[in-house]
Amino acid sequence: MTKPERVKTADVHAVDVNPVDVILAKRRGEAHDRAALDAFIGAYQRGAVADYQVAAWLMAVVWRGMSDAETADLTQVLADSGERLDLAGLPHPVDKHSTGGVGDTTTLVVAPLVAALGATVAKLSGRGLGHSGGTIDKLESIPGFGATLSREAFLRQAREVGIAVTGQSADLAPADGLLYALRDATGTVESIPLIASSIMSKKLAGGAKHLVLDVKSGSGAFMKSDDDARELARAMVRIGQRAGLAVRAVRSRMDEPLGRAVGHALEVNEALAVLRGDARGGAQNALREVVVVLAFELLESAGLVSGRAEVEAALDDGRALTRFERWIDAQGGDVSQLDRLEVAPDRATWTASASGTLRRIDAERVGVAVSRLGGGRAKKGDAIDLGVGAVLHARVGDEIAAGDAIATLYHRGGRGLEGALAALAGAAEVGPPLTPEPVVIEVLR
Amino acid sequence: MTKPERVKTADVHAVDVNPVDVILAKRRGEAHDRAALDAFIGAYQRGAVADYQVAAWLMAVVWRGMSDAETADLTQVLADSGERLDLAGLPHPVDKHSTGGVGDTTTLVVAPLVAALGATVAKLSGRGLGHSGGTIDKLESIPGFGATLSREAFLRQAREVGIAVTGQSADLAPADGLLYALRDATGTVESIPLIASSIMSKKLAGGAKHLVLDVKSGSGAFMKSDDDARELARAMVRIGQRAGLAVRAVRSRMDEPLGRAVGHALEVNEALAVLRGDARGGAQNALREVVVVLAFELLESAGLVSGRAEVEAALDDGRALTRFERWIDAQGGDVSQLDRLEVAPDRATWTASASGTLRRIDAERVGVAVSRLGGGRAKKGDAIDLGVGAVLHARVGDEIAAGDAIATLYHRGGRGLEGALAALAGAAEVGPPLTPEPVVIEVLR
Repeated sequence: MTKPERVKTADVHAVDVNPVDVILAKRRGEAHDRAALDAFIGAYQRGAVADYQVAAWLMAVVWRGMSDAETADLTQVLADSGERLDLAGLPHPVDKHSTGGVGDTTTLVVAPLVAALGATVAKLSGRGLGHSGGTIDKLESIPGFGATLSREAFLRQAREVGIAVTGQSADLAPADGLLYALRDATGTVESIPLIASSIMSKKLAGGAKHLVLDVKSGSGAFMKSDDDARELARAMVRIGQRAGLAVRAVRSRMDEPLGRAVGHALEVNEALAVLRGDARGGAQNALREVVVVLAFELLESAGLVSGRAEVEAALDDGRALTRFERWIDAQGGDVSQLDRLEVAPDRATWTASASGTLRRIDAERVGVAVSRLGGGRAKKGDAIDLGVGAVLHARVGDEIAAGDAIATLYHRGGRGLEGALAALAGAAEVGPPLTPEPVVIEVLR
Repeated sequence: MTKPERVKTADVHAVDVNPVDVILAKRRGEAHDRAALDAFIGAYQRGAVADYQVAAWLMAVVWRGMSDAETADLTQVLADSGERLDLAGLPHPVDKHSTGGVGDTTTLVVAPLVAALGATVAKLSGRGLGHSGGTIDKLESIPGFGATLSREAFLRQAREVGIAVTGQSADLAPADGLLYALRDATGTVESIPLIASSIMSKKLAGGAKHLVLDVKSGSGAFMKSDDDARELARAMVRIGQRAGLAVRAVRSRMDEPLGRAVGHALEVNEALAVLRGDARGGAQNALREVVVVLAFELLESAGLVSGRAEVEAALDDGRALTRFERWIDAQGGDVSQLDRLEVAPDRATWTASASGTLRRIDAERVGVAVSRLGGGRAKKGDAIDLGVGAVLHARVGDEIAAGDAIATLYHRGGRGLEGALAALAGAAEVGPPLTPEPVVIEVLR
């Protein structure tokens, strides 16, 4: 995305800020007001406050926390640190954000689904890191698909097709980018107010009017515990309320992979299956279940549907698929190749070691296994293999016999296979029967 | 002091350290072991760990604290980061450290007093900052006195005269210097384990075998509360015990200035009065009282005296004064000028606004007043006026009448006088009779 015109520039006040006073205030557990945050973050962006001062402040925030008002103020300060996209001229601009999971390809289905029902998805999306895949990477497994749009092309396509997805712009919430890099290097990533303000600052700068958050908890999620996930979801909803953004948070489980496919091209194949209405929702198709809930919450928030059946109909009658193909075509993707995406040529099997009910499949381990096959990045900028991955043949709650395949691994000449199988050792558990929990836990508004 | 031969070089292990892991461990409240501290601080000194990482770690230490073993380990790591002076060949090498006060010129008396009784004081001393004066600055009000000794001259003089005092060397505990500068800029100065390890690392590197700490609390002290001062004193004594250094901590009050004089040349004059045995101890001569206690604790620890009377005798019979003059002479000072030190020529009076008992004289405000007259530094390297200052005519507990002089200010042509008098407004309180508390609170061993 080329550098766009600024809608609102960083509003750095001329307030003189003594960084040590700001750090000491947070160290004592005091709440900062908007002016103090504006001055502190603004001075940091200008280089007038040092990395080490912000680092000490970040750890004090981890220690002392932030009030709701303070978290909302920090979010606005970060959102105001660069451009804000103006999507006000587009019909029902909506956005979605996932806290990141394994086999989670909801965006590829939710975007065309809500567009088919009247919303506009003009979305900046990221690449994968660690054991989680990224939407942009998945889309690039479609021959010809381009994820770098000029601002003009991005907005024109959003208006004409109802969907445009492009890579994250460094011009959006640049102060958040600075803070995030510092948090990553200083052990201050895990903090509800810092995570919530980071995510929401980019969403506020992104310009949508309705936002749905997919907040995951479980072994394959960033938030391992339900309580932390609920707290994060609530914090983001409250930020949205204070910022005049309609936000709903869907809390979903990420203990086993969401879909059956894990890996870029394989996940596009699975998204296509959902778009074709091949499968129903419920426990046996958690991906479709989450897709429908996310789409419904966005569309109801925007006043475009009143019931879940309207959403399901657009999946089942092909409207969502048609919109998907228009979108891929608009961004240069070869739609005729959608059923022939390149996947790695070699196969291996991950088998069950006992007979009984499958009680657990560790999503993070499956993500790590695919990453080791070449499908994940250890650090930003690493090249990845879009064709490797895993396809699960069973879900938690299914009966399985010793020696049955739990999953097929798609690899390239054995590269990373040993490491992948090592990651999977013990990642599945077989035992007495159990009824799987619903994938969607609750919706917070 | 020129760069001396290293007795023990920084023992940086080849341990690979992941700084984020170290920060996260402290964030979780875990204690570091010696190897982790060695690797982390060593890597910081080499530039392999960034300032911002150490800053986040420092705030996590402020938050989570440090165990006794951990504080002692950090102290050793800092002491090992540069040279360690080897004073083992000198008879009874002793050292003293004060946490800093106002009108506190104990070192100028304690050093010759303990030297007169058989101890060796080979001491690195600092300059003043803020409202506290420094020993080196006070000594430089004596014409000709030189505070920069080569290592050879320093050790030779210590052996021949029993006392040598030189400026702080950057070669001693250099990692502490790095950490201190970072703490100063990141709001992480106030932390008992960080303060204790910082002070004690320089003392360990300084090579003495017996150490007495003068830990002050009250309005003019760094530690305002008695509890914090006790905790700091205990922490330093425990570090000493673990390091095999005989440490005693004298806790003393710093609510009113310790002596009657505040200001460099004026304080040397007062030290001379105590060395001449002009005054007795007790509440009416808190300076002599603290001097005798500090000297006694050092000398008893070194096995050189068994009672306080032996210490008082060396003050009263002129042995301490003789040793003082030999010391000043050895460092180039003109002993014939000791009774004619240059003081600022102009006088102003700080008067009592009511009649009654003097109940409070705020030491910090008096220090700030003298600083405003030109006698203090706002930042390192500032030039100061050694001739300005204040001489108090009354102590807490004395009767005073409205209009009587509480103190005479020594200024130069009114420079800073308005600010000094403003600092003193309200700094004294007159009311019903009160019995002053003893200046020495307790001795911790």
